[in-house]
Amino acid sequence: MRYVLIIALTIVASAFGRGLHAQDPLPSWNDGKTKQSIIDFVKNVTTEGSPKFVPAEDRVATFDNDGTLWCEKPLIQGLFAFYLAKKMIDKKPALKEKQPYKAIAANDMAYLKTLSEQDLIKLVVATHTGMTAGEFDKSAAAFFATAKSPSGKAIAELVYKPQVELLQYLRANGFKTFICSGGDIDFMRPVTQLYYGIPPEQVIGTKFKYVYKDSAGINDLVRMPSMLSFNDKQEKPVNIQYHIGKRPILACGNEGGAGDIYMLRFSQGNQYSSLQLIVNHDDKDRETYYQEKDNKSLDWAKKYNWTVISMKDDWKTIF
Amino acid sequence: MRYVLIIALTIVASAFGRGLHAQDPLPSWNDGKTKQSIIDFVKNVTTEGSPKFVPAEDRVATFDNDGTLWCEKPLIQGLFAFYLAKKMIDKKPALKEKQPYKAIAANDMAYLKTLSEQDLIKLVVATHTGMTAGEFDKSAAAFFATAKSPSGKAIAELVYKPQVELLQYLRANGFKTFICSGGDIDFMRPVTQLYYGIPPEQVIGTKFKYVYKDSAGINDLVRMPSMLSFNDKQEKPVNIQYHIGKRPILACGNEGGAGDIYMLRFSQGNQYSSLQLIVNHDDKDRETYYQEKDNKSLDWAKKYNWTVISMKDDWKTIF
Repeated sequence: MRYVLIIALTIVASAFGRGLHAQDPLPSWNDGKTKQSIIDFVKNVTTEGSPKFVPAEDRVATFDNDGTLWCEKPLIQGLFAFYLAKKMIDKKPALKEKQPYKAIAANDMAYLKTLSEQDLIKLVVATHTGMTAGEFDKSAAAFFATAKSPSGKAIAELVYKPQVELLQYLRANGFKTFICSGGDIDFMRPVTQLYYGIPPEQVIGTKFKYVYKDSAGINDLVRMPSMLSFNDKQEKPVNIQYHIGKRPILACGNEGGAGDIYMLRFSQGNQYSSLQLIVNHDDKDRETYYQEKDNKSLDWAKKYNWTVISMKDDWKTIF
Repeated sequence: MRYVLIIALTIVASAFGRGLHAQDPLPSWNDGKTKQSIIDFVKNVTTEGSPKFVPAEDRVATFDNDGTLWCEKPLIQGLFAFYLAKKMIDKKPALKEKQPYKAIAANDMAYLKTLSEQDLIKLVVATHTGMTAGEFDKSAAAFFATAKSPSGKAIAELVYKPQVELLQYLRANGFKTFICSGGDIDFMRPVTQLYYGIPPEQVIGTKFKYVYKDSAGINDLVRMPSMLSFNDKQEKPVNIQYHIGKRPILACGNEGGAGDIYMLRFSQGNQYSSLQLIVNHDDKDRETYYQEKDNKSLDWAKKYNWTVISMKDDWKTIF
């Protein structure tokens, strides 16, 4: 009996061991320099005794969201602003007489594509405020449950599969994964656990001013029409400090608006070994091809020795 | 062989079961209504099938710090401000000619006790800003390593033992524990893991404005002389929302300055069963006796059915 047990256990353990080694932690990534540099980094920081070893509590990874974890063309929060604007028009039809509400009501995408960043921010302020946090949360959840992109995809289908694998791989190696996005913090929270395995308390984003109200049957926060922090560019290190109080050892952003370069520099100032990743939108067939006019993100990547992820070459599958 | 194994396992399981039941999770708390209400609450929210069951991911607990987890008379961050002021005087002796620096240099506690809240805030702004986050962190760590209270105690000895047990008990039951304090967020972070088992990313506090600088050999955040958020009263629910994105099911504060009543009300607006605790500083022999002039916190406790923790009656040991 004892021998049978030992033999059985040996077989199980050996199968398990082979399984672990044989399994590719990043199956949607093509083999090559980029994938290898990620795997080498994770191996180094998790190997006790290695000069690059990092204690588990300091294995912090921060990821931008738009263009890094899910696509930003179309901008999903822009779709949400249109969704909310339509609800506003339902309540107050006179809104339809002025732009951009007129174009939103008519699904006039040609017009909407001409909106400047300032126009979009104005629309976001108008649609994202003047309600309680509870009401906003319900609207966001309803949006994610029903919305489609202009090409007819559900929002969940706009998530980059290789990045979900990377997040899982990092967590399996003791990392704590955070989102650090220019998107509204409470817009993302209803789906970050489901889409990325990241709980609401590990989401950092743009913040509107909140005022606490405990009267007239309301016990909630009211969303005020002014931004407390637009979590982009130099504000990313600021909000990482407030929220985490530690520098990330891995930071991942994307080229497109140079919004992540300071987050990557902040990570690079870590006392520990660190890795900076920047997603390049260079795949016109499977995603959208776009490059910064001044090439700032990729120039900094070269200057500071960051790893550029080519969507075209490094990702076997994108969605 | 099989029977021997089953018998052995039965003995082990039974001993383990007895051990678990026999052990008091809150040994520094006296038996009574308060302790029982905490234990009952934890049992209800963790028992699957109970109408009060709360999924683990929503078991969020927030604790004030000053007067709730460690003492606030003396105010430990006040001691740190004096510590930093002395370093400033060392560098610039002329400071000693004006108050409150004169009194700080002379250890004139009689004078320092007369400082108003506004005077203290002014001193905190002057001493806590104008350096990088890295420099501030080092100063805080050095303070905690060497400082003594006016009565000669190390800072670690000013922590309330029953509260450390309560935090451990909650975590053992799947809770995620957070600090939500009026103290400077980055002042507390070097010791929250050691003192309370709470990591830096689960600390919410008062925030000074940060500006990211990446030039002249500095890659860090600079602490600016203006407060972004004084995390007290109605600002506590606001910052809990920003930081956690969920209402706590357990919130614990203290009477003294009515700083925690809105955090407790916010917790009470939870969709789940929730518990509100308020520490009463009613033990003149073992701690310091002080009550609010208008009795606001204890009045609200009565009105809203919060559990009052009497330091005198409910705590067997305080430090």
